Amino acid sequence: METIKVGLLGLGTVGTGVAKMIFDNQEELNKKTGYAIEIIKVAVKNINKKRDIELPQAVFTDNPQEVVENPDVQIVVEVMGGLEDTKDLIIKALQNGKHVVTANKDLLAVSGQELFEVADEQKKDLMYEAAVAGAIPIVRAVKESLAADEITEVMGILNGTTNYILSKMSQEGADFADVLAEAQELGYAEADPTSDVEGYDAARKTAILASIAFSSRVTFDDVSVSGITKISARDISYAKDLGYSIKLLGVAKREDNGQIEVRVHPTFIPNDHPLAAVNGVYNAVFVKGKALGDAMFYGRGAGELPTASAVMGDVVEVIRNIRSGSNGRIGCTCYNEKNIKDVNDVVSKSYIRLLAKDEPGVLAGITRILGEHHVSVESIIQRGGQSSGCDECEQGEAEVVLVTHAVRHQDLKAATDEINSLAKVIQVYNIVRVEEGGN
Amino acid sequence: METIKVGLLGLGTVGTGVAKMIFDNQEELNKKTGYAIEIIKVAVKNINKKRDIELPQAVFTDNPQEVVENPDVQIVVEVMGGLEDTKDLIIKALQNGKHVVTANKDLLAVSGQELFEVADEQKKDLMYEAAVAGAIPIVRAVKESLAADEITEVMGILNGTTNYILSKMSQEGADFADVLAEAQELGYAEADPTSDVEGYDAARKTAILASIAFSSRVTFDDVSVSGITKISARDISYAKDLGYSIKLLGVAKREDNGQIEVRVHPTFIPNDHPLAAVNGVYNAVFVKGKALGDAMFYGRGAGELPTASAVMGDVVEVIRNIRSGSNGRIGCTCYNEKNIKDVNDVVSKSYIRLLAKDEPGVLAGITRILGEHHVSVESIIQRGGQSSGCDECEQGEAEVVLVTHAVRHQDLKAATDEINSLAKVIQVYNIVRVEEGGN
Repeated sequence: METIKVGLLGLGTVGTGVAKMIFDNQEELNKKTGYAIEIIKVAVKNINKKRDIELPQAVFTDNPQEVVENPDVQIVVEVMGGLEDTKDLIIKALQNGKHVVTANKDLLAVSGQELFEVADEQKKDLMYEAAVAGAIPIVRAVKESLAADEITEVMGILNGTTNYILSKMSQEGADFADVLAEAQELGYAEADPTSDVEGYDAARKTAILASIAFSSRVTFDDVSVSGITKISARDISYAKDLGYSIKLLGVAKREDNGQIEVRVHPTFIPNDHPLAAVNGVYNAVFVKGKALGDAMFYGRGAGELPTASAVMGDVVEVIRNIRSGSNGRIGCTCYNEKNIKDVNDVVSKSYIRLLAKDEPGVLAGITRILGEHHVSVESIIQRGGQSSGCDECEQGEAEVVLVTHAVRHQDLKAATDEINSLAKVIQVYNIVRVEEGGN
Repeated sequence: METIKVGLLGLGTVGTGVAKMIFDNQEELNKKTGYAIEIIKVAVKNINKKRDIELPQAVFTDNPQEVVENPDVQIVVEVMGGLEDTKDLIIKALQNGKHVVTANKDLLAVSGQELFEVADEQKKDLMYEAAVAGAIPIVRAVKESLAADEITEVMGILNGTTNYILSKMSQEGADFADVLAEAQELGYAEADPTSDVEGYDAARKTAILASIAFSSRVTFDDVSVSGITKISARDISYAKDLGYSIKLLGVAKREDNGQIEVRVHPTFIPNDHPLAAVNGVYNAVFVKGKALGDAMFYGRGAGELPTASAVMGDVVEVIRNIRSGSNGRIGCTCYNEKNIKDVNDVVSKSYIRLLAKDEPGVLAGITRILGEHHVSVESIIQRGGQSSGCDECEQGEAEVVLVTHAVRHQDLKAATDEINSLAKVIQVYNIVRVEEGGN
């Protein structure tokens, strides 16, 4: 049996998972691909570090060039992360005739176009299933299974850390800071949680998803992002009262005129929407297509073996392409011109929570301003004083929660700025988008 | 631009959807495949029937041989259904050098092996994404994305009609016969609902899923099947009290020794299991893999355009293979020997509902028999007379509901047969399997 020779860039969590799967599933992999798979070179920072996997010492190098320059390596698996240096390595690997499988969302969200162009020129495979939603095979589903359909909407829970935090806040009525601290202790959140809690990680994945769903070239900079740090236990409590769950969603929609909305933000979703039941560290991607209707893909978004499973699915695909001489078979120059909608023009329902003086005329003032800005109101809850369920209110204060009908973001912003300046309004605490459409 | 020539066998609901997608998405399909797609021959029963789609009269024929013998047809899309005659047509198409995309679960569940062997010999594509769970791209996910993993379990809600009926029964507390009649009026159930409500349709799809998940050749005859006709409003009510939903599941599991369980039956699943939230006509497939962990795929299981979306995903795949000269690229002779577990040896928790005389010693008699057959009990509910929530009980009768711990099916059957023969037991009404594992 012929051997396919693999080089790894990186042997951290995911790289170790990949090596384990290659060893443990060797027999089935042989059967399914017709080849034996051998790891012949592994670039790591410290070649003497003790590792959770048995590999001959000779395969290790601390010089990643030795992987991408090695003439015997046929497939480079990039699981080291990083931006500029890693980009150069991937380009060199492709130019040296190697196929590349990567899990590097940060890089793809910024430099995807450049990398795919090199892969197309070289007629080499560049695959990245693991870069979006871990083990969930959403990239292949969108690029292949749904290729004949017109996808109009993708909404995803794409970050396990924030979903864990929001789920815990919802289950326990706890506040953001407490749950974050707990998640950090348990290892579910990093010491510097910025990339997760500010939504940047989800935004990178959303850019990649929007690119493949709409055959476009959406990058991280195109995504309008807000994180979950302002979501409080009170917002979650009101969401429950109103029949919603709060999730950090990556949302990408395409209108018939070709304009693309692409944004990441906390979102109220109705409890009968399939995304509402996705809790803990799980990820899920909801897809709407003109023929497909509604579909959802659910699974683990991170972790050694789940992510390795996605990487290895790509490796098998590359090997099958090698076997049939069809590497680069999906590649196409079918990209549509990018047409990103200004986030100020995005229309959605919204939730507003504010603290006001508990005096006559307050609501009248608020609703007058909303009306002037073409914001119509679907429901209002007002709770005054501690006796009526507003724990945070002082004597003489009232909390007001509004859910609007669909409204242009710019109008909503103008209205809430004006409301915030009313003498009787103490502070507009939070504005959160509301998505509709359950089953 | 070169043209790919397609022949359709059948122009019913799905066939019409396929033709619509080819017309409506022509431009995107050209970009993604590099070819124009033309339907040049369509076999129908009545060539004069008025249709919901504009096709030149010359493409119609009432002789399906004219499709599979037509030298210009490159891809045959089989959406006519049927068994022996259709099998012969597909084999002839493959032998004539055509690729085949089919939605025919009935045929694949019985004769899949024979058809795949012909396709392999001829190095032609034979694709069937639409045969299982309609628009949900589960076939490609299992065959490609999860190819490197070891799948241990697949559980699916694979029949929209029965899921609609069970959902309605649950929402409205209604009984099976009433909801079935309503579903028939609405067109969600057929005049002869046997194939759906007895579980045969789900069993065909389960056989196909088990085959691809376990690289085996599971056929319809291997599946142990029971339908939903015995599920009553009372069973659903008890399920709710116990924290479960009742779903008709297709279950396929593989043990480490290679034995495969494959069965279709109503099932109690915990409310925090992702399958529990799948309601109405939606389908979903839950997959457990050693590396993957838990994943779920959710979407529409039927309908003109959703099913056509799956067929067209396959057509695009075939065209990409034609472009790269790699048809038959996934084909492998990687089948494991089939080793089906006797259903009597299957171990699971179970729910038992029975009516007994409300007399001392009844429960003792029941639990004694259970103990003798190694059946241990997790929980018992007993409701006597109308005053304590047993609407169906006469004076002096009590309803007893038990949930067992994991038990061998054969032991459970022996125990319940013996219980049913007790003088104080009026009737064992229902025995339903219980699956565990929420999130």
